[in-house]
Amino acid sequence: MARYDPNNIFAKILRGELPAHKVYENSDTMVFMDIMPRSDGHMLVIPKTPCRNFLDASPEQLAAVMATAQKMSHIAMRAFDAQGVTVQQFNEAAGGQEVFHLHFHILPRRDGDTVRPPGIMANPSVLKAHADQMRAAVEAG
Amino acid sequence: MARYDPNNIFAKILRGELPAHKVYENSDTMVFMDIMPRSDGHMLVIPKTPCRNFLDASPEQLAAVMATAQKMSHIAMRAFDAQGVTVQQFNEAAGGQEVFHLHFHILPRRDGDTVRPPGIMANPSVLKAHADQMRAAVEAG
Repeated sequence: MARYDPNNIFAKILRGELPAHKVYENSDTMVFMDIMPRSDGHMLVIPKTPCRNFLDASPEQLAAVMATAQKMSHIAMRAFDAQGVTVQQFNEAAGGQEVFHLHFHILPRRDGDTVRPPGIMANPSVLKAHADQMRAAVEAG
Repeated sequence: MARYDPNNIFAKILRGELPAHKVYENSDTMVFMDIMPRSDGHMLVIPKTPCRNFLDASPEQLAAVMATAQKMSHIAMRAFDAQGVTVQQFNEAAGGQEVFHLHFHILPRRDGDTVRPPGIMANPSVLKAHADQMRAAVEAG
């Protein structure tokens, strides 16, 4: 497996070198909106420390990321009136990974919806509205 | 969220009331082949204790399941000469969940393959061969 590349775009987001619609962060993890959402409210949960993907993640990184992913799944159910959540996580190019910093996809789902095809950029104002809605739910506790 | 139903089919597999192509187990988790594999070597990782899905999983259940999922991802890369792994996890019917006992899907992936559509039963002899191959890799350590 290749080594961690500190110039991947999520590392740049973590360093504040690139913008993101942030929803939540704690000492170990950050959550922001996927700019190509497969469902409304599609978020990414990442560790703040370097990790290429699931294959080289430490138990501590996984515990932190899963705790935040679980928290955000509950937030999504509440903030988005979702009836379910789909979790996806891709490893290496063959596994569907495009950014080589560990990330879990959290997709809020509604009865009868379908996951949109990949690669469709969201309308920036819609993305901002969804981030605001999700952040408000985090703050409401 | 509905309560855990102890008569779901994975609970029956855990109790030995239904067969499965088991690949690995430890004190806290079990791994067996998905009978409708989305890719060759598609496995399911489950906790041995009751848990409906990601939304009600305890930190201990998640730590155990993720450790085994990570181990099996490495096994899949080695046993199946995979170049990547896709992880999926579905919550509630709207989120794609069909069996209501927490499970993580581990899909070995190869360059240029595509994930097969859902609902296609595997040839039993192929499934057994893949399970044997995976189990041999576990035993080889």
